[in-house]
Amino acid sequence: MKTLIIVSHPEINNSQTQQFLMQGAKLQDVTWHHVEELTKIDINKEQALLRDSDRIIFQFPLYWYAAPEGLKRWEDKVLTRNFVYGDGDDNLGDKEFGIVVSTGMPLKEFRRGGSENITIDEIMAPYRAIADRAKMQILPTFTIAQFGYLNDQEQMQLLIDYQRYLTQEYPDTLSSRQKWFEREFTDRFKNFNDTSCAECETILNTFIQRREDLEQLKSTIGLIKQGEDE
Amino acid sequence: MKTLIIVSHPEINNSQTQQFLMQGAKLQDVTWHHVEELTKIDINKEQALLRDSDRIIFQFPLYWYAAPEGLKRWEDKVLTRNFVYGDGDDNLGDKEFGIVVSTGMPLKEFRRGGSENITIDEIMAPYRAIADRAKMQILPTFTIAQFGYLNDQEQMQLLIDYQRYLTQEYPDTLSSRQKWFEREFTDRFKNFNDTSCAECETILNTFIQRREDLEQLKSTIGLIKQGEDE
Repeated sequence: MKTLIIVSHPEINNSQTQQFLMQGAKLQDVTWHHVEELTKIDINKEQALLRDSDRIIFQFPLYWYAAPEGLKRWEDKVLTRNFVYGDGDDNLGDKEFGIVVSTGMPLKEFRRGGSENITIDEIMAPYRAIADRAKMQILPTFTIAQFGYLNDQEQMQLLIDYQRYLTQEYPDTLSSRQKWFEREFTDRFKNFNDTSCAECETILNTFIQRREDLEQLKSTIGLIKQGEDE
Repeated sequence: MKTLIIVSHPEINNSQTQQFLMQGAKLQDVTWHHVEELTKIDINKEQALLRDSDRIIFQFPLYWYAAPEGLKRWEDKVLTRNFVYGDGDDNLGDKEFGIVVSTGMPLKEFRRGGSENITIDEIMAPYRAIADRAKMQILPTFTIAQFGYLNDQEQMQLLIDYQRYLTQEYPDTLSSRQKWFEREFTDRFKNFNDTSCAECETILNTFIQRREDLEQLKSTIGLIKQGEDE
């Protein structure tokens, strides 16, 4: 799967969150595309990049209930009407669309009665509307609240969840999660090839064994159910 | 009432709609503030302009379910957190907030099942959230759909509705509408002072007479109701 991350942040080098996510993205086979770094927006090049992707992700910090101006500039230039829905060619129709948004406010404030008094889903509606117009498959929004307050354990969990968001098969079922972890394990071991990693191999084998056990169990339950139905 | 119109349009001279609205705004005592014309955004000056207004209106064409990048740039710079809700001073809390949005799509497409599949109110939620945060009074959004297809009569109606949106007392009741028209009539006659306008005077007098008749009627109905209740 080819994942394209359209990142917007006016001061990305000073953003702890974006730097963290960038490290996580580097471990995956994805394209990190920072729009504020484009000195000139080449519409054809940008459209080709989109056309060439399977999953397109908008990633940004929340500034006044929307992405920073940089993403809007990119949208207003790159997303020509013809490209998105006008010319009959399904340029984006087979692709997935996700949003990774970070905020300094606690997540619980994004609801009626909270200090923000609006939900993250309501805030993201205009972006979802674009994807909808392009007939894209919309993924649930990935929200990172108050990154600065996360402890090490929580950061590690965030890293894995983020990586899964970038490349795991949608929808997020137990089976697609298993597949993702197995592939990740295997890929990482390849990198360890020169050094021996007996522990790694044990982990992978245990994982595969457990997955197979689960599948066996599932199939047994299926048979029992079938019996009951007859 | 001091009304400030924050206008955003990257090619305002080519926009038939914005030129039309500008002519309408000129007839009212309002401030027309086009953000794309600001070569440098002076935060203090912009904030003073906002602080000095009673009604603040964002006016723009709909580009990908939001304002053009120019307005977002202005927002990201001018709307510092402290100014909007941070420092305890109620900088905007006593003001009204409105949106004038134009779109090339028919209004009926902005609903579930329509080609846009999202309502105007849903699209405007992020702007409303800012006003909410600033404790402003929110006016219903003023939507102009397919300006190019309006006939003369419809354009005149739009002009008056727009002018009322800029300066009429909120909420839009019969009584605030009457007050607005009476004031407008009177103001216009002042400009006709040198020339005689018997017709104008007749119109105004008839208007005032009818308003007084209506008030009399209302008061009579009130008395009848009171009698029934006893």
